[in-house]
Amino acid sequence: MRIVIIGADAAGMSAAHQALRTARAVGREVSVLAFEAGDHTSYSACGIPYWLAGDVDSGAELVARTAREHRAAGIDLRMRTRVVAIDPTRRQVRSRDRAGIEETHEYDELVIATGAAPIIPDWAHDDTGALHEGFGVLHDLDDGARWAARLGAEPPPVVVAGGGYVGIEAAEAFVRRGCRVTLVTRGRVMSSLDPEMGARVAVGMAAAGVKVIEGAEVAGVARDGKGAVCGVSTSDGGSHHGLVTLALGVRPRTQLAVDAGIPVGQRGGLLADPTGRVAPGVWAAGDCTEVLHRLTGSPAFLPLGTHANKQGRVVGTNIVDDGQVRFGGALGTAITRFVTADVHLEIARTGLTLAQATELGLDAVALDTEGTTASRYMPEAADVAVRVVADRQDRRLLGVQIVGGPGAGKRIDTAAIALWGGMSVDEVAGADLSYAPPFATVWDILQIAVRRLAERL
Amino acid sequence: MRIVIIGADAAGMSAAHQALRTARAVGREVSVLAFEAGDHTSYSACGIPYWLAGDVDSGAELVARTAREHRAAGIDLRMRTRVVAIDPTRRQVRSRDRAGIEETHEYDELVIATGAAPIIPDWAHDDTGALHEGFGVLHDLDDGARWAARLGAEPPPVVVAGGGYVGIEAAEAFVRRGCRVTLVTRGRVMSSLDPEMGARVAVGMAAAGVKVIEGAEVAGVARDGKGAVCGVSTSDGGSHHGLVTLALGVRPRTQLAVDAGIPVGQRGGLLADPTGRVAPGVWAAGDCTEVLHRLTGSPAFLPLGTHANKQGRVVGTNIVDDGQVRFGGALGTAITRFVTADVHLEIARTGLTLAQATELGLDAVALDTEGTTASRYMPEAADVAVRVVADRQDRRLLGVQIVGGPGAGKRIDTAAIALWGGMSVDEVAGADLSYAPPFATVWDILQIAVRRLAERL
Repeated sequence: MRIVIIGADAAGMSAAHQALRTARAVGREVSVLAFEAGDHTSYSACGIPYWLAGDVDSGAELVARTAREHRAAGIDLRMRTRVVAIDPTRRQVRSRDRAGIEETHEYDELVIATGAAPIIPDWAHDDTGALHEGFGVLHDLDDGARWAARLGAEPPPVVVAGGGYVGIEAAEAFVRRGCRVTLVTRGRVMSSLDPEMGARVAVGMAAAGVKVIEGAEVAGVARDGKGAVCGVSTSDGGSHHGLVTLALGVRPRTQLAVDAGIPVGQRGGLLADPTGRVAPGVWAAGDCTEVLHRLTGSPAFLPLGTHANKQGRVVGTNIVDDGQVRFGGALGTAITRFVTADVHLEIARTGLTLAQATELGLDAVALDTEGTTASRYMPEAADVAVRVVADRQDRRLLGVQIVGGPGAGKRIDTAAIALWGGMSVDEVAGADLSYAPPFATVWDILQIAVRRLAERL
Repeated sequence: MRIVIIGADAAGMSAAHQALRTARAVGREVSVLAFEAGDHTSYSACGIPYWLAGDVDSGAELVARTAREHRAAGIDLRMRTRVVAIDPTRRQVRSRDRAGIEETHEYDELVIATGAAPIIPDWAHDDTGALHEGFGVLHDLDDGARWAARLGAEPPPVVVAGGGYVGIEAAEAFVRRGCRVTLVTRGRVMSSLDPEMGARVAVGMAAAGVKVIEGAEVAGVARDGKGAVCGVSTSDGGSHHGLVTLALGVRPRTQLAVDAGIPVGQRGGLLADPTGRVAPGVWAAGDCTEVLHRLTGSPAFLPLGTHANKQGRVVGTNIVDDGQVRFGGALGTAITRFVTADVHLEIARTGLTLAQATELGLDAVALDTEGTTASRYMPEAADVAVRVVADRQDRRLLGVQIVGGPGAGKRIDTAAIALWGGMSVDEVAGADLSYAPPFATVWDILQIAVRRLAERL
């Protein structure tokens, strides 16, 4: 069996290695041919902000597996080679390397793992089609290297456009490097939380010196007296000077698949079935797909390495072993932080916000509870706020949001597992969670929050 | 309704306040009369080691609610007054205060919340019945005050007898205060973990300079040349000089109930039904009870504040509102740490060890997995080991043990919720847990550990 994989990052390479492992396990012969358009394989895009912050010394540290390591494991990996066409009928792909040389390759099974591309407004480009000088995204290792080079001894002012995960992480990095940071977002900071919880993040960022501008969209470039681009203008009439980080989100890279007649969803992502298949002989995994949201029952675009890795394993197994495993979907679990010398905020969410639940037509209710991460008398005790969302009708837990100090964020996994198991607020309120003074209050704050809501339902 | 409560710590006072709350909610008249034999109410015994370590300045900080606060909430609280007899037929208790004055009190409903008492060998007492000079336990605030007074400017050598939670926490405290510490335990350090995981704790303690002696029991006093008690002798023929902390466990304080004809279990604890009732008109909560272990289906003696608080609330509700709520039982979830200048170990467990599962006749299998608490390139990354125990027959998760660096321990709650929901290893391996580089690897170590075991089942 000849497997062709398009894209050599998390999803594609998880699929590749899992296919080889599965083939060994079931005693089947497979070959894996993989194409990577860029210069890097299997790297942690999530680590780029920490590279800029100085936690990581070089982009190489963010590479989990090099091309050489993938090849050593038996993958025929073609770097800097783009797949330019898929013919699902003939089961062929057409590749083009940087020298322009094209080749056609037969496949039995094809895995599309083309990832997502950063959203960049047209006005952010100059006449050559490149980004304006001083503009950049934080998407791949080349972006990271460019930013690392820009942050010299004298910290420049920086404008971060976008108040989501990457925007907040970028803001942390730039503050830690001593930059004066302005964050502009068209909505609110951390809009994947309900407004009351997102506001806690905005307040924390402001306390660390970030100028937070909500409700304003970056709308064009700002120019200095000589007409040179020196920052961005915003929809509220503002003008902000400095280096510009565009953290406006990503969209699935699926043109190649669309051109081959493979359907995409409302958010532009490929719609794989639970086995990972998108068409006969064609599979997809990672940021180019929409994933099933277990609580809404609908596809969602949640471009995260966690899903990419899981989907990749599912696809790799199923290609070889005929649909044995299923991707269980997502809950929208996510975590990030904003940590500087002055402020330590951990930010996490899982499941539905009150807004999402209400929009779905659920009779949802939310309650915010404040507490501490450890017994109040301990030096480890930090403030934490927990929002719990539940269904008034069936008392089911629907979602949890956490904003708090050291140790607060990872509590989200406890909530995520409860959601994964479809548990009620009563079940969670009664559960046997761990307590010792440096780690929790005797009722853990998560459990207090769930219990308080349960008592009000 | 006249409610009498024996014991004014976590369980008793949770029951008291919950009864008053429930009475207000349902519009019922109740009076609560509570007796406390000691000098303190609602204090955190778990905080005592951190008081000794210097994290907490005084015992007062460990008091969650004073007698005055309880009284202000409407509880008729009699301090330094012991209940010396229960007559369940006449629904009366007999109290005796420190002046020796006895009184009889009628009740409609009685709550026994007498807690547990530290296990102290006879030879640890002098002729007057007091502990030998330099000996002590870490059970209540008076014990804490005695230890705090003993730790002056010149750190004394200390022998800790017992390698369980309190022993380890005491060892941390004494090391942090600069004491030379010897820990003696008849079994292994942290025997509530499987040996392979407990050994990691022993190694960490030794690395911090603790002399760890396993397989030896404290057997008597050691005396100096003048015949004065100066430490302990051990069953291996050893002799260890210094102050002596007895951390040999606790047993339920139930003689009063036994004398009244109320049955106790194999471990000496009262056997409450899920509503908290032990006999007509008599309820019990906290460390004087055995709790239902959800995985074994049998009563277990797990004297922890978490259960005491939950049981207290259940009892307080049910007394007033006629059996509306149930205590869901326990999983044996627990967390502690051993943290000094040199070593940071977080230690947690939930569910069954391999040894426990095997003893129950389950076809159990365990697998240990090592990883990091954060992405390896992050400064936050610390080593962590996770043992997962599962049932080979039905693939059910049976237990998890964690030993690792900062951030490792509280991951146990994620496993605990999975156990609470009766989830399989496959469900946990597929769940949507949170990832960002400072918080986890892209597959969280807990999930890697569960997945690896799932693949081998």
